[in-house]
Amino acid sequence: MLFTDSEIIRSWHVNAAPWTKAIEREEIESRKLITNQAIINVILEEPPLELLDLGCGEGWLARELASKGINVFGIDAVPELIEKCKQRGDANFVVCTYENLSLLKLDKKFDSIVCNFSLIGKESSELAVHFSLNQLKANGRLIIQTLHPLIACGDLAYMDGWRPGSWSGFSEDFKEPAPWYFRTIEGWCRLFERSKFRLLSIYEPLHPRTQKPASIIFECVPEADL
Amino acid sequence: MLFTDSEIIRSWHVNAAPWTKAIEREEIESRKLITNQAIINVILEEPPLELLDLGCGEGWLARELASKGINVFGIDAVPELIEKCKQRGDANFVVCTYENLSLLKLDKKFDSIVCNFSLIGKESSELAVHFSLNQLKANGRLIIQTLHPLIACGDLAYMDGWRPGSWSGFSEDFKEPAPWYFRTIEGWCRLFERSKFRLLSIYEPLHPRTQKPASIIFECVPEADL
Repeated sequence: MLFTDSEIIRSWHVNAAPWTKAIEREEIESRKLITNQAIINVILEEPPLELLDLGCGEGWLARELASKGINVFGIDAVPELIEKCKQRGDANFVVCTYENLSLLKLDKKFDSIVCNFSLIGKESSELAVHFSLNQLKANGRLIIQTLHPLIACGDLAYMDGWRPGSWSGFSEDFKEPAPWYFRTIEGWCRLFERSKFRLLSIYEPLHPRTQKPASIIFECVPEADL
Repeated sequence: MLFTDSEIIRSWHVNAAPWTKAIEREEIESRKLITNQAIINVILEEPPLELLDLGCGEGWLARELASKGINVFGIDAVPELIEKCKQRGDANFVVCTYENLSLLKLDKKFDSIVCNFSLIGKESSELAVHFSLNQLKANGRLIIQTLHPLIACGDLAYMDGWRPGSWSGFSEDFKEPAPWYFRTIEGWCRLFERSKFRLLSIYEPLHPRTQKPASIIFECVPEADL
């Protein structure tokens, strides 16, 4: 397995179809039980008029938010997933890698930018966070949901670094898992600091069965807005 | 075991002597290996002129910082521990519970306030954080080192709440362990938010043997300073 950002995109190309099916059928227990609603709750604490769903995947969150009257714009690197979005959504969608975000000419800024389990790589995630800073309106929020580092760490050393991926727990339709870049909480905080964001809140949605956090949600605002 | 803030003070009265001995002899491995230096490093990132060591115990950190030319003021609820401080320190020390901090007339403000493993209770910790807000100079920092919630959680549910204490791993001179109030990272963040602090950074000093965080350090600034 190659430990690169482009390898992540390659894997998602391969797995776009089974992923769409898994989301449609609500096959991922922690999403169905906790993390889908958790990200919606944080977004709706201050309902945005305009929201950017960065790494929107097949578009379930974009559709959910659009149905609440929010103007949603979705970006994803995987054309097959954006196709699914366009077939079904009221929102606007475009194909773009995080590496190419800076080439994208967006004619508006957003009240909220959300990355829901969509910051998986190293440089690519850093580019997505940097990009977000200049796409937020004044007092806008960047909201990131990701694996909880202490839970996702497993038996390995608690240090930032690439890790091999796995589809364990998923159907056998999934192939060639993508590597992912593990970040500690300190690592995430350093990334926000370098990108001139400040942490506003951290949420740790509790998994009702394991009684441990099912994810972590970081809510950030541009340093300049404080 | 009673789950109250006052029970914590009672336990420290009982254990002041063995605690002082354990610190002098560097019997607590994680302190010797990691967390003592970790808190000093964070403090010295922006060396303060005036520092308040809130819950200073027998005074090792106050002495260490005073030896670097910092004017240190130490507060602790346990007279026996403050006695030890006074016998040996260049710093100034006073006995006061967190509950009585608001009655204390301090004639100066501080560049940094540090709570090194000294926020153990519920209301008492909240009072200490609230108190700190008004005792900081402009652009001052509140620095808190505490048990890492995900590590300290053990097999119990990851939820804020009182827990029974234990002296396991300590010598048999220690008696009547104090209860402590467990806070999740989200719980700590809520406390900072309610007290009008903003998180600047989070540090997770790595234990070289376990390769997991030995503690967590929160660095906060008054909301009004941003």
